[in-house]
Amino acid sequence: MFDYITAGESHGPEITAIIKDLPAGLKINIDNINKQLKRRQQGHGRGGRMDIEKDRINITSGLREGITLGSPLAMNIKNKDWANWEDIMTVTNKGDQNKIKAKRVAEPRPGHADLPGGIKFNHSDLRNVLERASARETAIRTAVGSIAREFLANFEVEIFSHVTGIGTVKSPNWLAIKEQKNITSIKEIREYFNQVEQSPVRAGSKETTAKMIELIDKWKEAGDSVGGICEVIVTGLPLGLGSHTHHDLKLEGQLAAELIAIQAIKGIEFGGGFKLAEKPGSQVHDEIFYDNDKKKFYRKSNNSGGLEGGISTGEELIVRLPMKPIPTLSQPLKTVNLDSKEPAEAAKERSDNCAVPSASIVAEAVTAIVLAKSFSNKFGGDSIKEIKNNYNSYLKQIENY
Amino acid sequence: MFDYITAGESHGPEITAIIKDLPAGLKINIDNINKQLKRRQQGHGRGGRMDIEKDRINITSGLREGITLGSPLAMNIKNKDWANWEDIMTVTNKGDQNKIKAKRVAEPRPGHADLPGGIKFNHSDLRNVLERASARETAIRTAVGSIAREFLANFEVEIFSHVTGIGTVKSPNWLAIKEQKNITSIKEIREYFNQVEQSPVRAGSKETTAKMIELIDKWKEAGDSVGGICEVIVTGLPLGLGSHTHHDLKLEGQLAAELIAIQAIKGIEFGGGFKLAEKPGSQVHDEIFYDNDKKKFYRKSNNSGGLEGGISTGEELIVRLPMKPIPTLSQPLKTVNLDSKEPAEAAKERSDNCAVPSASIVAEAVTAIVLAKSFSNKFGGDSIKEIKNNYNSYLKQIENY
Amino acid sequence: MFDYITAGESHGPEITAIIKDLPAGLKINIDNINKQLKRRQQGHGRGGRMDIEKDRINITSGLREGITLGSPLAMNIKNKDWANWEDIMTVTNKGDQNKIKAKRVAEPRPGHADLPGGIKFNHSDLRNVLERASARETAIRTAVGSIAREFLANFEVEIFSHVTGIGTVKSPNWLAIKEQKNITSIKEIREYFNQVEQSPVRAGSKETTAKMIELIDKWKEAGDSVGGICEVIVTGLPLGLGSHTHHDLKLEGQLAAELIAIQAIKGIEFGGGFKLAEKPGSQVHDEIFYDNDKKKFYRKSNNSGGLEGGISTGEELIVRLPMKPIPTLSQPLKTVNLDSKEPAEAAKERSDNCAVPSASIVAEAVTAIVLAKSFSNKFGGDSIKEIKNNYNSYLKQIENY
Amino acid sequence: MFDYITAGESHGPEITAIIKDLPAGLKINIDNINKQLKRRQQGHGRGGRMDIEKDRINITSGLREGITLGSPLAMNIKNKDWANWEDIMTVTNKGDQNKIKAKRVAEPRPGHADLPGGIKFNHSDLRNVLERASARETAIRTAVGSIAREFLANFEVEIFSHVTGIGTVKSPNWLAIKEQKNITSIKEIREYFNQVEQSPVRAGSKETTAKMIELIDKWKEAGDSVGGICEVIVTGLPLGLGSHTHHDLKLEGQLAAELIAIQAIKGIEFGGGFKLAEKPGSQVHDEIFYDNDKKKFYRKSNNSGGLEGGISTGEELIVRLPMKPIPTLSQPLKTVNLDSKEPAEAAKERSDNCAVPSASIVAEAVTAIVLAKSFSNKFGGDSIKEIKNNYNSYLKQIENY
Repeated sequence: MFDYITAGESHGPEITAIIKDLPAGLKINIDNINKQLKRRQQGHGRGGRMDIEKDRINITSGLREGITLGSPLAMNIKNKDWANWEDIMTVTNKGDQNKIKAKRVAEPRPGHADLPGGIKFNHSDLRNVLERASARETAIRTAVGSIAREFLANFEVEIFSHVTGIGTVKSPNWLAIKEQKNITSIKEIREYFNQVEQSPVRAGSKETTAKMIELIDKWKEAGDSVGGICEVIVTGLPLGLGSHTHHDLKLEGQLAAELIAIQAIKGIEFGGGFKLAEKPGSQVHDEIFYDNDKKKFYRKSNNSGGLEGGISTGEELIVRLPMKPIPTLSQPLKTVNLDSKEPAEAAKERSDNCAVPSASIVAEAVTAIVLAKSFSNKFGGDSIKEIKNNYNSYLKQIENY
Repeated sequence: MFDYITAGESHGPEITAIIKDLPAGLKINIDNINKQLKRRQQGHGRGGRMDIEKDRINITSGLREGITLGSPLAMNIKNKDWANWEDIMTVTNKGDQNKIKAKRVAEPRPGHADLPGGIKFNHSDLRNVLERASARETAIRTAVGSIAREFLANFEVEIFSHVTGIGTVKSPNWLAIKEQKNITSIKEIREYFNQVEQSPVRAGSKETTAKMIELIDKWKEAGDSVGGICEVIVTGLPLGLGSHTHHDLKLEGQLAAELIAIQAIKGIEFGGGFKLAEKPGSQVHDEIFYDNDKKKFYRKSNNSGGLEGGISTGEELIVRLPMKPIPTLSQPLKTVNLDSKEPAEAAKERSDNCAVPSASIVAEAVTAIVLAKSFSNKFGGDSIKEIKNNYNSYLKQIENY
Repeated sequence: MFDYITAGESHGPEITAIIKDLPAGLKINIDNINKQLKRRQQGHGRGGRMDIEKDRINITSGLREGITLGSPLAMNIKNKDWANWEDIMTVTNKGDQNKIKAKRVAEPRPGHADLPGGIKFNHSDLRNVLERASARETAIRTAVGSIAREFLANFEVEIFSHVTGIGTVKSPNWLAIKEQKNITSIKEIREYFNQVEQSPVRAGSKETTAKMIELIDKWKEAGDSVGGICEVIVTGLPLGLGSHTHHDLKLEGQLAAELIAIQAIKGIEFGGGFKLAEKPGSQVHDEIFYDNDKKKFYRKSNNSGGLEGGISTGEELIVRLPMKPIPTLSQPLKTVNLDSKEPAEAAKERSDNCAVPSASIVAEAVTAIVLAKSFSNKFGGDSIKEIKNNYNSYLKQIENY
Repeated sequence: MFDYITAGESHGPEITAIIKDLPAGLKINIDNINKQLKRRQQGHGRGGRMDIEKDRINITSGLREGITLGSPLAMNIKNKDWANWEDIMTVTNKGDQNKIKAKRVAEPRPGHADLPGGIKFNHSDLRNVLERASARETAIRTAVGSIAREFLANFEVEIFSHVTGIGTVKSPNWLAIKEQKNITSIKEIREYFNQVEQSPVRAGSKETTAKMIELIDKWKEAGDSVGGICEVIVTGLPLGLGSHTHHDLKLEGQLAAELIAIQAIKGIEFGGGFKLAEKPGSQVHDEIFYDNDKKKFYRKSNNSGGLEGGISTGEELIVRLPMKPIPTLSQPLKTVNLDSKEPAEAAKERSDNCAVPSASIVAEAVTAIVLAKSFSNKFGGDSIKEIKNNYNSYLKQIENY
């Protein structure tokens, strides 16, 4: 379940997705999807395009009266700016050759797919690459993720994120914050992340927010861009997603594959991540305890980030992603003209100068997709009713383990 | 091509793999595979088992006179210690119940798959989990990787690795080393990595080697373990593997999925990785130049690690992996007894106290597999002859781009 | 390549498809797609809906100026009748409850997915099943197939079909016709199938056409429906698609999977098919000859239907498909009411009484998709230019075999 | 689950399979697997090799004390004749060049993979193709199927088969037999198929058995071979496997793909199959009734073969497969010598002259694999205990539908 394909060019008529199979009987609240699309469009550092877009989802199949049928769900987001691009990005007709020539990209932008994509696919206009490589595509992935999130909500799985670094400005990771603020209940978790939602850079405190904004603005003025780090936290995940039995069944591999495939993400780490490589084993592994009241094993630390041997432990899932700075700079980088092979300056598409807050939302969505897929693989079932039966039966089995 | 499944328990009769489809006409040198198996077994910090094993590959199909037939290739590595485990790990018969009881693991070891695996699969003997979750499995993945490596060698793709950190002892990354030592040619690259092969911790200098060994020994004495960081470098990779067109076609996602699935790896980064999040865009993106003699685009920096927009750029591929310390300690961690639910100490399996040099070899192998698969997807073909034709034809196309 | 997902309910706003990856540089003629959509809508025996629909394709991504970009291609066919169904099949809103109740299907129709689909997905309104199970979905698969067909045309692969049986009226199979009419050249093949296009039942002669029409009309008058047999023939296919090396790589298995998945198809046979089971081996296997001028192996018979050991032989591919009669009858069948569990009569949706000519077109399309996928797996490449290079290089290799 | 790869050449050291993921806690009786291997080796018409082989399964991982661990299960069947082939089929060494030359196949056998396989994979010795294309591989698929069968037995799913045609000698299909013999209970079904087991041609009556044997012997004497038809019947299958929602989720497509991939099978049909194309709808579709005592929908006819809209109906699954005659004849067919391109006679490998009874067993096994995979997709779960809970919960849901 939750297999999907996305399509669409950045300045094409629409971006589209189909999710192949969903359980039947799942209620989908359209407002929730639009809320996620809006969250993705916010954040200090976004360019002018965000004002134009105001993305709204349009679902064309797989739902009836807002409830899934079990059949593929197709949906799209219309490009509000299409009228201005129709002659250039014309799908089936001969376009306006002057406009097409004017918008041709013949000078590959470093850090983008332009050059390798152009050569691989044998395009002489690099617009034919960049239109698809653009992060615009993450809007529809966010919509797919919203549906996965609605599914997971049925099982009390919640997904949060915040930004823990913009350039050189860092703020504490989730594990540090939990300790500092002594956060223990889901209520307190929600409170913290409600605060994050108020920050235009998705930071956990007002001080950090101010510093991050300052840094973004400084680089913007300098015609430069800046990256950062975001962290996704998942609560309520049951023990037992993924598997140790084969390398391609490990949950971290499945998460890594899709999360690193978000535009501009250059790595990933779980729990303690790279820092764990520096410590002795006795300080790393999360000791095991048993709660006789809840009939449940639990941990006091979570360096594993909720994953042992490729399997979810039932503790919080914690993932961290570094985003490189956006490669489209006002101060252009050196490149080469495809025709003349002479040195040139990289083309400037209108762009943001910091997209880390936005990537944080996309990362939530992609995490939701991977988890929903893994969840439905483990629990089987074709309707929400059946899946809930299976899920509850497994919870009982665990209690008696 | 290069789809494969591995099987085998750590103390079972053998570990096995089948690679589903390989091109025909590929020469496989068995000595090369055994050489890779030996490299994996070396390294300061390995436990006593390495002396017993001396892994040798045994191929049972898909080859004739050392040349691939195009049919699935099955192979195995026999467990030399099987006689001592036959009564305990008996496959089809009733074993020796006393021995089985004596070797039962009822106290899950933190940091291993024991607890989540035991609950998920409903095992009361956690040996039924740990036998498969063990890094013993990486021996056969190393063999699969050796075959991928033989394939890639036909196209002058070479794969290297070194260790850049053991606990708190760090040594420079590949990009720093290249700059320091002014390495530019493939001959110089090979020389550096030949040196690495002489180091029992796969470090790039004698000083670092000494410090790393000292650290490993210190923690060993203390009954503790230690992790580290390894880096894989690939030379000779053509521009154009992977794709920007869909998230699951991106080469970094495919690499991440399989590399993070190596036991004890908790993250991954490409090129500049997490550090790129701290810098302005103008210092990150690799500017583009053109070499008129070679008719080739090239870069002077490689912060991207050889990947832009999910596609190989033709520069070196650079991947870095953090390994957590081995979770089996002589100083046992706190856990819980499955039967009584009372506090207990984690079971001790015989083990290494540092496996980072070994992980470095496994990471080479896994990288080879992913690249061989991606390579054969791009170039098609059923025989080495046909693939070479296609490859050369593409190189010419690039030259004339 | 050519992975795709379709979506859409029969009376929803549109049916949609995305093809994940296509080669770049492929010219797509929209008129050709619409021509195929029209061919699918024709045929004696189609119901009233065909008049409403007049399907037109609408492509929204993956193309620019009619040439593929290498990125996913999304397309849809709008439902012209949507205004009449909006209150009933409402996607996200609460619909008109009276109309919804009036259109509820509570009495499962034998021969349809109604009952198993309703129970499996826990639907109380079987419309939630039948809307997706409907053969309406084949319109968009026909569009996907048109694109595959454009791709194959670059390599001179052509796909034809005719109807060889409607109910008890049979007409000769392709192998018999070739012998009868002494058809040997591609020109003669095209001539025969041009004639077929003139027949409203896609039969090969005027006599058979008349008899088939008569039979269809007879059953229509009786409130009954009728099935038949169609045959797909592919010319120009190179030797070497598919593989003998693993069961899931065999071309016949891949064809069978997708062709049997066409609505109402209850079987499949290749070449001589079931009849081959009756004959001695000496009369079945296609003897091998060599043409010194063309430097080519060839056959004088084609009982294998162009497939030996899971691999295309380079001879014509011949597939035959039986279609059961349409299950929606004017004379309703016995069923049970879901609420009362009392005997009832099956619901009557507006419908055709014979759809075999239409299935024949869908079968062409689906065959094209499977072959395009297999073709691009074998020949690799990312642009039409590169694939042509690889293809021609292979043809030369064959010549020198 | 139940993903698997097979490997092995006909005269190599062994044939091997790995099943990637199985539920934990499944009891595997080795004797049952060997019993299935033996059934496959029986049948009038088999050649001399059957006496040599006496296949025995050897499991090397994934099991402990005969119970699955949830980890991949590897197994192999040793080739008893390997000593005689070691110099010829040598895996990694240089073999005996004289023997290799003597056993070289340079004259492709019509009806086999020899010619297309040789050209596709660029082999000059066609033994490199035929060794893998051989039906010897079905022995290990039968073993895989035995494990699937053990799994299904936990849910009271049973798989039977018989032969309904050898050449021109036909015997009634299952639906006809049920009617003739008034078979209604599972006990009567087992009785009939127990009789089939006694027939060396797997026919349902002594008269047919005698006629079939006579025909096989007649063609054997004439140096010829003969094919036939087998039918697989599955009882106890729950309603709800497969899905109508997407073409690749339909159960008949999944069955067709794997069943047609059995060597020498040239088609497939479900239930009434090709005959349904001749009848009016009113005589085809299986009317629906309700049993108030069992709280269950049921049918009085089963023309659908247990499949509607790609979903199992809960009635018996009925599949029919035509097998072409074995292509290796004592009276050789015309072919061409690869070196000289001169006319030649096809090489003669030792062979059976009728393998239909054997194919009938292989078809049971392959059916079991597909159903086990579909079953575990629907019901999820990681241990037999969990799957049983999910299954029973679904049965209750159905009762209350």
